[in-house]
Amino acid sequence: MESRSGIITLITDFGTRDAYVGVMKGVICTIRPSARIVDISHEVPPQDVAEGAYLLEAAYAWFPPGTVHLVVVDPGVGTHRRAIALYTRGHLFVGPDNGVLSPALQQERRFVHEISDVDYALADRSDTFHGRDIFAPAAAHLASGISLERLGPAIDDYIVLDLPRPLLKGRRVEGQVVRVDRFGNGMTNIPRGMLRRLGEGPFVVFLGERSLGPLRRRYQDAAAGEPLALIGGDGRVEIAANGASAAELLDISPGIPVRVIVSS
Amino acid sequence: MESRSGIITLITDFGTRDAYVGVMKGVICTIRPSARIVDISHEVPPQDVAEGAYLLEAAYAWFPPGTVHLVVVDPGVGTHRRAIALYTRGHLFVGPDNGVLSPALQQERRFVHEISDVDYALADRSDTFHGRDIFAPAAAHLASGISLERLGPAIDDYIVLDLPRPLLKGRRVEGQVVRVDRFGNGMTNIPRGMLRRLGEGPFVVFLGERSLGPLRRRYQDAAAGEPLALIGGDGRVEIAANGASAAELLDISPGIPVRVIVSS
Amino acid sequence: MESRSGIITLITDFGTRDAYVGVMKGVICTIRPSARIVDISHEVPPQDVAEGAYLLEAAYAWFPPGTVHLVVVDPGVGTHRRAIALYTRGHLFVGPDNGVLSPALQQERRFVHEISDVDYALADRSDTFHGRDIFAPAAAHLASGISLERLGPAIDDYIVLDLPRPLLKGRRVEGQVVRVDRFGNGMTNIPRGMLRRLGEGPFVVFLGERSLGPLRRRYQDAAAGEPLALIGGDGRVEIAANGASAAELLDISPGIPVRVIVSS
Repeated sequence: MESRSGIITLITDFGTRDAYVGVMKGVICTIRPSARIVDISHEVPPQDVAEGAYLLEAAYAWFPPGTVHLVVVDPGVGTHRRAIALYTRGHLFVGPDNGVLSPALQQERRFVHEISDVDYALADRSDTFHGRDIFAPAAAHLASGISLERLGPAIDDYIVLDLPRPLLKGRRVEGQVVRVDRFGNGMTNIPRGMLRRLGEGPFVVFLGERSLGPLRRRYQDAAAGEPLALIGGDGRVEIAANGASAAELLDISPGIPVRVIVSS
Repeated sequence: MESRSGIITLITDFGTRDAYVGVMKGVICTIRPSARIVDISHEVPPQDVAEGAYLLEAAYAWFPPGTVHLVVVDPGVGTHRRAIALYTRGHLFVGPDNGVLSPALQQERRFVHEISDVDYALADRSDTFHGRDIFAPAAAHLASGISLERLGPAIDDYIVLDLPRPLLKGRRVEGQVVRVDRFGNGMTNIPRGMLRRLGEGPFVVFLGERSLGPLRRRYQDAAAGEPLALIGGDGRVEIAANGASAAELLDISPGIPVRVIVSS
Repeated sequence: MESRSGIITLITDFGTRDAYVGVMKGVICTIRPSARIVDISHEVPPQDVAEGAYLLEAAYAWFPPGTVHLVVVDPGVGTHRRAIALYTRGHLFVGPDNGVLSPALQQERRFVHEISDVDYALADRSDTFHGRDIFAPAAAHLASGISLERLGPAIDDYIVLDLPRPLLKGRRVEGQVVRVDRFGNGMTNIPRGMLRRLGEGPFVVFLGERSLGPLRRRYQDAAAGEPLALIGGDGRVEIAANGASAAELLDISPGIPVRVIVSS
């Protein structure tokens, strides 16, 4: 079922100023010397589980099948929250059972196991750094080819985040901004496919009560410095600006409503 | 003509807080699983093409021949600006045709091609993320050994940045600060070789109207905490301070004139 | 004596905004194309030798034996401070002789050599960037399997940092905060082993004059948002807070006294 690409990706909230990421890489290299470690981001805000899940969703499917995705955003380290690993859509995932793996856990066919076999963890386990003691070892062993079953029993009562979902209401879609990126673009939770269910368009996009005009194709379809809405690289409606920061032009932050209507 | 080192270097303005860099790495690993990806910097200020070109110039020649250098600073994504790839001095380069590859495009013997063959891009191409859809695939295919010609036709009307050049005027060189680094050092555009054309020296360096005294060899040739000028690691005149930040001591920013005269 | 893992770890104060780290990686890849480079941190504050030493101590032992650890925090570049390389506890280390390698130099069995043979440095050596010209080449050659002796003569008059040590005074241990991490946790210099010498406990921890109550096991042993003390992932007493930043709750900075007493 599960081939291996030899790649382990990392998403954490550890930053790169401390040694935590380096320590995890050392543990991985010790267990699996040939592992190829790829940093996705260590800049998740401390303990922001939803942001970790967002980055995982954005990145994982672009890697080759058999890649192990290790996500450590773990405010509950040391409590009874479980460590889990799962397989879905050709990829493997390792992290705490706090919802950070939701993008994988929400797939239809998935095989989820608790990580409980101490043979696949470090011998001395702390109550404060499971990234090093439990998650990195599990990821390295998975990258080495062990099966999920070896890590622990199958479970089905894992935690899935209740993320805001867009709604289809007659001839409009109601969603929201979920994130602002480095360029000041506002990413929303409205996928292109949902607009297709509204019909052929043309579509008009509203940020709160403000119209951003018709849905565009390219940043340059607005005048220089002007805001617009388009389908972003992630296949979702994005609030942007041509050569400028939409976050600076508009008052964008996660949670602000975004509506798409058919103008006809 | 073009051997391959298997290394792909990355320079982008994507930062490391979002998933964009991770996505590009996933695309590269999918096309070329054995590629060795080396991050140079993702901290180019958003859409700062000149800074991307500066980092490329500073870094590329230190890598082994046959390395592919991928530079994505792309304010014109989605417009008719072309994607290009070139070979010069033993290295390969991939990026948008907006001048960011100028350090390579200015070399004497160069082979520049448009990237237009859709067989070497992702099947679904967005208008907002060519780093993922066009540039990363082209870099991965080049690292796999395909020839430049396969990507598209040779072109000679690409864009080269018009960067400020130092001038030799009688017994002095006039240049400017082009960049301030993390340590507060002011990098200039005056290469050591240009001073040699002034003669044997001794040289005196001016920042604007302020004399920084004779050109020194080492940071410690100035008193502790004092500013000085020397030849930096990049082989150019650098404004620095001994154990301190020249940027904090002096009023250094890109564009400030720097003069070197022969004192005799 | 010295096997090689093929891994070279990097700790520098170069940041990731400039090209310095990329240049060093290029030099390593040119000398040792198969080297696996692992970034530990480039965010050491400029010229902060003690912080570089701290990160090295925290990370190195987690890597496989035969790893080369390259540390470049080098305020004395260009002076007569030496370049050194050493072997201890199965690992190899390269850096300036300014104390940044102290965690390795303080081990009991160690083999320390000056790096003086120009055959293992770049042909053109600057006075401002030894990370590129001397340290990266030495690390790459060591990773390739050359012996320490080839780099230069054995020495025993290297510099070791005089870091604050915890003291055992009767029924208490007196140490201090040495570092604040990304999460706002205050790391101290009091190792778990030292508490064992106080007896079985229970222990009470003081930050300055403020009691933090009994030594806990897990962050969640304090009420939400409340400060506590526990043994951190590095095996030392750590000042933390449950789901919050201890640095924001308390007035934590390096140098503040921490005492552990036996309450009985």
